[in-house]
Amino acid sequence: MTAAAATPDHEPGQYFLAEIREQPDALERLVDDGGAEAIARVLVERGIHTIRLVGHGSSDAAAAYGVYAFGLLPAWTALRDSISLTVYYDAPLDMSGSAVIALSQSGQTPDVLEYATRTRARGALTIGITNDAESELAKACDLTVPLAAGPERSVAASKTYMNTVASLLLIAGIAAGRGDEIRDGIRRTAQLLRETLAPLEGDAARLATAFAYVGRMYVIGRGLEIATAREIALKLTETCRVAAEPLTATDLVHGPIAAVDALVPVWTIASPDASLHATKDAAARARAVGGVLIASGSAADAIVGAPYRLPVPATPAPLFAPLVSVVAGQLFSAALARQKGLDPDRPEQLTKVTLAP
Amino acid sequence: MTAAAATPDHEPGQYFLAEIREQPDALERLVDDGGAEAIARVLVERGIHTIRLVGHGSSDAAAAYGVYAFGLLPAWTALRDSISLTVYYDAPLDMSGSAVIALSQSGQTPDVLEYATRTRARGALTIGITNDAESELAKACDLTVPLAAGPERSVAASKTYMNTVASLLLIAGIAAGRGDEIRDGIRRTAQLLRETLAPLEGDAARLATAFAYVGRMYVIGRGLEIATAREIALKLTETCRVAAEPLTATDLVHGPIAAVDALVPVWTIASPDASLHATKDAAARARAVGGVLIASGSAADAIVGAPYRLPVPATPAPLFAPLVSVVAGQLFSAALARQKGLDPDRPEQLTKVTLAP
Repeated sequence: MTAAAATPDHEPGQYFLAEIREQPDALERLVDDGGAEAIARVLVERGIHTIRLVGHGSSDAAAAYGVYAFGLLPAWTALRDSISLTVYYDAPLDMSGSAVIALSQSGQTPDVLEYATRTRARGALTIGITNDAESELAKACDLTVPLAAGPERSVAASKTYMNTVASLLLIAGIAAGRGDEIRDGIRRTAQLLRETLAPLEGDAARLATAFAYVGRMYVIGRGLEIATAREIALKLTETCRVAAEPLTATDLVHGPIAAVDALVPVWTIASPDASLHATKDAAARARAVGGVLIASGSAADAIVGAPYRLPVPATPAPLFAPLVSVVAGQLFSAALARQKGLDPDRPEQLTKVTLAP
Repeated sequence: MTAAAATPDHEPGQYFLAEIREQPDALERLVDDGGAEAIARVLVERGIHTIRLVGHGSSDAAAAYGVYAFGLLPAWTALRDSISLTVYYDAPLDMSGSAVIALSQSGQTPDVLEYATRTRARGALTIGITNDAESELAKACDLTVPLAAGPERSVAASKTYMNTVASLLLIAGIAAGRGDEIRDGIRRTAQLLRETLAPLEGDAARLATAFAYVGRMYVIGRGLEIATAREIALKLTETCRVAAEPLTATDLVHGPIAAVDALVPVWTIASPDASLHATKDAAARARAVGGVLIASGSAADAIVGAPYRLPVPATPAPLFAPLVSVVAGQLFSAALARQKGLDPDRPEQLTKVTLAP
């Protein structure tokens, strides 16, 4: 790999870091923007019972959060739907009673766009969540939620992920008649994040030093934090070229633990909710076979025997925890990439808009 | 890691290899057994519209196939459901109109068992697919499909995976009124597999020689073959201690491709269906950044520039392809494990029944 060079007008990773720091403002803008209100109202009016989420990369990680937000708030079934079934195989699925939420920060992801177009023709209510309200995706959908994240110049996403997660939380919360509580919780979480960013950035940079030669990692969480595990693993992979695989804590012990040894650190996201004991147990098993633990999340103290720790403060309720725990991984990735001479703003193999089939 | 020693009554990997070879017989037994008939009839009679699949490890890989079998045959929505939402968070999801298919070869996986118990209490029709018809899971569910795979002595699963996939295919096919066609197709696939096993075993052993020092891999497929990608990645990880991550071909290029270089082989499963071009495109991008391709599946010839090839014969229709393409990965894993002195029958960190929370 080639070290990224600084130029007079660009320091490697400067956009990524700046955008990580902008996240509290981005969250507040999203709440102020109020785009989720109309969406939630239509979902309730139409008697929607199934939410089909689609996206790739960070959008797919956010979709994993959506499964929990809709399950826990209005108690609707939400799934990360198969794009291939509709786009490649043209399966005649019954879409009545379904809403599609198509996630793409650029609004240009080809198969997501095609999925939205086809499911709309089959009768689904289609909602695009995108950072470009003029994009093809916005035009293809019945309704749009603008991410209100502001321009994202780094190829590695941060604030668009944050606001996608928060958009799903807002829609689900308002649909459940708990809009005020969720809006207030996001505002309080944004403020908490604002206070946390600077010290966490220092902690992450100190921690990253030890990881310069790590080639593979596992990132585990359970329940609400599986979305965070997916997003942190993706950041480590795309910005630091670490092959990091996200797994539920339980799936780690159902096979992949066989590949864990002292060369495979296990990043553990521990949040104080009912799934914590599964994460603690998986961490203990990883440690027993020689795995090196990084304990993160606001319940990091519950992870026994972790030589590396990157705790974050507790949020108003477990539903908000993923908005803070992901930031530890973003800042760690930014620091590790800098140390390795890589540029998260423009990783060699990636572009901001992925036009893959 | 410690090399597995042969003992007078056990050669490392002998059960795994024997059970891989038994798969054609296991498939035929399952079709003869006819357990899927009654299940499919009840699903249709009850007007089920949503199938909730749960399982870990190989069972979860098979669940990914179920999403396609139910989508393509009766055109029902099937999802790999969140276990945590029900088991840890007790989300009050509406389960009317849903059938749960709980997958566990042992019938003892704790959270799968708890999920089945709770969703049954919420009104879901619960179906257990297990290799132990007397297990706790079988008792906890309304209905059971016995896998009819015979005892599986290797910790690394093969024939129970095969028969779980085939069970889902049978249930979906019969529910769609296409039982005769699917039964006939599975029988023809079993015969094809019988003819393929010996030459494929030799090809896989020759290929594995080059991979003795590989630490990480990606395994990609799309559509129907994403289940195969998941299962092959799991076999490589648990039997060979290679950190192999499964990804859809499209997800590879949305981030993880940044970690691909000459030290990260990309196992590509190419089958001749409408998703093939996405797999071809992802393989080409992986090759462009220095990734070493292994082309597998019956359309392996469509993958350009792969120095390693492990093709399999074409099946009667794309729906049956995963029953054959997975065997290339099983045999490759068996050969690589033997070469590395590891024992797939009893990997150091794993047990046949995983009693994790």
